[in-house]
Amino acid sequence: MAKKNAISPARAEDFPGWFQAVVKEAEVAELAHVRGSMVIRPWGYAIWELMQAELDRRIKQSGAQNAYFPLFIPLSYFEAEAKHVEGFAKEMAVVTHHRLEQDPADPEKLRPGGELAEPLVVRPTSETIIGKSMAKWINSYRDLPMMLNQWANVVRWELRPRVLLRTTEFLWQEGHTAHATEAEARAETEQMLEVYRDFAESTLAMPVLTGEKPEAERFPGAEMTLSIEAMMQDGKALQAGTSHYLGQGFAKSAEIQFLNKDGDREFVHTSSWGVSTRLLGALIMSHGDDDGLRLPPSVAPQQVVIVPIVRDPEQAEAVEAEARSVAGELRATRFGNAELRVFADLRDRGAPDKRWEWIRKGVPLVIEIGPRDIEQGVVAVRRRDAEGFKPDSLAREAVAAEVPRLLEEIQRGYFEGAARRLAEQTASEITDRTAFEAWFDDGAGEGGISKGFVRAPWSEAPESEAIMEQLKVSVRCLPSDQRLPADSVCVLTGQPAVVEAVFAKAY
Amino acid sequence: MAKKNAISPARAEDFPGWFQAVVKEAEVAELAHVRGSMVIRPWGYAIWELMQAELDRRIKQSGAQNAYFPLFIPLSYFEAEAKHVEGFAKEMAVVTHHRLEQDPADPEKLRPGGELAEPLVVRPTSETIIGKSMAKWINSYRDLPMMLNQWANVVRWELRPRVLLRTTEFLWQEGHTAHATEAEARAETEQMLEVYRDFAESTLAMPVLTGEKPEAERFPGAEMTLSIEAMMQDGKALQAGTSHYLGQGFAKSAEIQFLNKDGDREFVHTSSWGVSTRLLGALIMSHGDDDGLRLPPSVAPQQVVIVPIVRDPEQAEAVEAEARSVAGELRATRFGNAELRVFADLRDRGAPDKRWEWIRKGVPLVIEIGPRDIEQGVVAVRRRDAEGFKPDSLAREAVAAEVPRLLEEIQRGYFEGAARRLAEQTASEITDRTAFEAWFDDGAGEGGISKGFVRAPWSEAPESEAIMEQLKVSVRCLPSDQRLPADSVCVLTGQPAVVEAVFAKAY
Repeated sequence: MAKKNAISPARAEDFPGWFQAVVKEAEVAELAHVRGSMVIRPWGYAIWELMQAELDRRIKQSGAQNAYFPLFIPLSYFEAEAKHVEGFAKEMAVVTHHRLEQDPADPEKLRPGGELAEPLVVRPTSETIIGKSMAKWINSYRDLPMMLNQWANVVRWELRPRVLLRTTEFLWQEGHTAHATEAEARAETEQMLEVYRDFAESTLAMPVLTGEKPEAERFPGAEMTLSIEAMMQDGKALQAGTSHYLGQGFAKSAEIQFLNKDGDREFVHTSSWGVSTRLLGALIMSHGDDDGLRLPPSVAPQQVVIVPIVRDPEQAEAVEAEARSVAGELRATRFGNAELRVFADLRDRGAPDKRWEWIRKGVPLVIEIGPRDIEQGVVAVRRRDAEGFKPDSLAREAVAAEVPRLLEEIQRGYFEGAARRLAEQTASEITDRTAFEAWFDDGAGEGGISKGFVRAPWSEAPESEAIMEQLKVSVRCLPSDQRLPADSVCVLTGQPAVVEAVFAKAY
Repeated sequence: MAKKNAISPARAEDFPGWFQAVVKEAEVAELAHVRGSMVIRPWGYAIWELMQAELDRRIKQSGAQNAYFPLFIPLSYFEAEAKHVEGFAKEMAVVTHHRLEQDPADPEKLRPGGELAEPLVVRPTSETIIGKSMAKWINSYRDLPMMLNQWANVVRWELRPRVLLRTTEFLWQEGHTAHATEAEARAETEQMLEVYRDFAESTLAMPVLTGEKPEAERFPGAEMTLSIEAMMQDGKALQAGTSHYLGQGFAKSAEIQFLNKDGDREFVHTSSWGVSTRLLGALIMSHGDDDGLRLPPSVAPQQVVIVPIVRDPEQAEAVEAEARSVAGELRATRFGNAELRVFADLRDRGAPDKRWEWIRKGVPLVIEIGPRDIEQGVVAVRRRDAEGFKPDSLAREAVAAEVPRLLEEIQRGYFEGAARRLAEQTASEITDRTAFEAWFDDGAGEGGISKGFVRAPWSEAPESEAIMEQLKVSVRCLPSDQRLPADSVCVLTGQPAVVEAVFAKAY
């Protein structure tokens, strides 16, 4: 195989440049047509569908039901919310007309016509509209808990878009639940964080920290925001999912009341939780290398690709028949709960082009079969996680038994690699501001490589914010497994610490 | 059971009123929040998800890949199309601003801010944007065929919205394919119509006519539009899916070219095809009755609901345990390719309320279990398709074997009932205008019951259009199985007929 890597620039040279190159070369997505808007290409979308199917299964198992709410939200709904919530975000797409008409000045041109009496906002989230529906649907305690989830596109105007990470339109799921008591709503908030954690770790092979956001980083209006945070290969944190307990504040503004068992009216307690196509970005930055994507088998649209190696056209038929036969055999085996996804690549292209395409696209196993392999009763297996993708010879009759085992090894290997990085690049011995600044002062701009996370005692003192801001560092979470020693002092201010925090640069 | 029906008005009294009542009472959907916009409630959305999963499987099997394209389309893309296509539809939502800001006149109010240099159109279809992406992705014949599909929300401003049938926003799938030759693109157009036909008949139990649209009813820009047409219970036609061959016209306007094997540049031939959440409306109007929905088991979110009948609270535990045990046993059996969907309804409500809820919602089988049933080793099975839902006693040990068989009977029965209606209410003996007018002159307005379809020879003469318009009748299709006798004359004009057509009032 060529020594030169498939992706340029390399991660160590220019991490953001590498990310963009992988997204493009692996045909995952592209910014196109409208500034900040994204096309998710078939390979990327197939990964998203696999994520979605698995997460949807878990969401339904948790008791939530899917539904669909309108794309457009009356402007007046935001006026109620704007009053209720400080930090109300205002960058949203606004529909003001319902017609395209010919421009009288230039009949080749079209212009907006039919002005709306009330402008409509393209949903940045469906919080308000789902809340108002719940208010209508919930009458008594018998209707609770009401647990709804929606898979949808949402729009938030982005001034500095980045493919998959920060786009004007993105796809996500948003769960919204209403409960009779605070305890139930908090339990739901925590349960969904656990769903996200387990999904990230088992399916995406992406180890995460779980914890609560400090007050300043909470979702506007939330009483508690929990998140899962993953470490990317550049040492930065990416918030990969959030779950909020909203108390009764949101129920009050949407007027969601119920009759309790005593016949009294009460406001419900609500939660909301979501993940988005950002997870595709997280997946790439967790596992990708300088040759492209590396997909955990759980979310690989093809887990195995079979490439026939034919030099003499007369041999083509026999080799292609063998490729199809191996594919058929593999499709009858299983990985996890599903049939294996296998593609016999018989397209009219050269074998090296095919091989590199599947390496770039992150397929876990490429199996190559030539006339001599058939003679010898073997196939050549290239693992995406192996140094240089050197082929291993595998007995033909062992293929169906070995391949699922190899896929499990790869899935586990990606998780372990990422877990090792997270452990090794999290400093827990840093005790003062000087060491803290040295850790984060990497002299690099947005594109720089960061050393990783710092886990340290924190005072929550306002003065610490300014120090973090200067270093472009934030508290990612107050990890769930608090182990603050007695009499700790804040790593930033030297004041008494009240909590253990994880600090990092972040996406 | 009560004699009174669950839905008012009845179908015979006021069909459109009945439809709206079923949609509401079965908690399928509602027009809400924004004029013409729709909330699809959990029960309706679960039906849609089942449709979607099955159709998606078939679409992928046909060779198409899913992808996702932006919601917003630059206005300029429509200018190119408006020039190319006559009959260009102009009722669309237009985004002109990207910010909500406080109104200086009244700080409690918000108003649009940040005017966009170029307005953005909310996609009414992704035709243009997918075409421009294809133009970028397709280089040579090796990239063909390119077969893409998208599941998405689209917006078309509706002045007279009707829930599920005509809403400003709806969900659909749109397939767009590009081919090297006309023959391949036409074959794809026909193959997808066949996918829709088989899906409608096998999954939705909804018999359909297949055929070509007459020229005047073609999709703007299409050289051939095929459709599946179903007959609703009011005798009207509903177009349930379309598939278009677009020739090279669309490729020319989107500039989709490829290098053929001789190294010459050619325009591709394209097709497009789609179905939408309208199918939910079609399903209801095909099978529903005066007690609500009747769901074919293939798309029933719950195929069996088990209702415990408990009068004495002391018996509750044993009866509920039995209900759970029956549910568990049934979940281990299969209907079609999937595990049975079974719900043990242990909610804190009375048994009659539960029974009527599941009848309204169209669940195929309700199984009731009381203490005496347990003693006698039986359960009581109520079929949704049985007169008065009278319970049949079924031996407890026969449940797991019998239930899948009953579900198959119900699925087949719904199809046969609808097929019988289609056959009986299609007149093929009408030969002149007087009889034709008598058939369609039902004296009723939009809400009236129509006698059904007329299948008759047609001249395609322009004079026939005026006659149809007056009767509010249209040619639904030129059916695929043409059997025009020699020397036939047009049912409308008496001129020589050139084709057999199916005429009907339509949604």
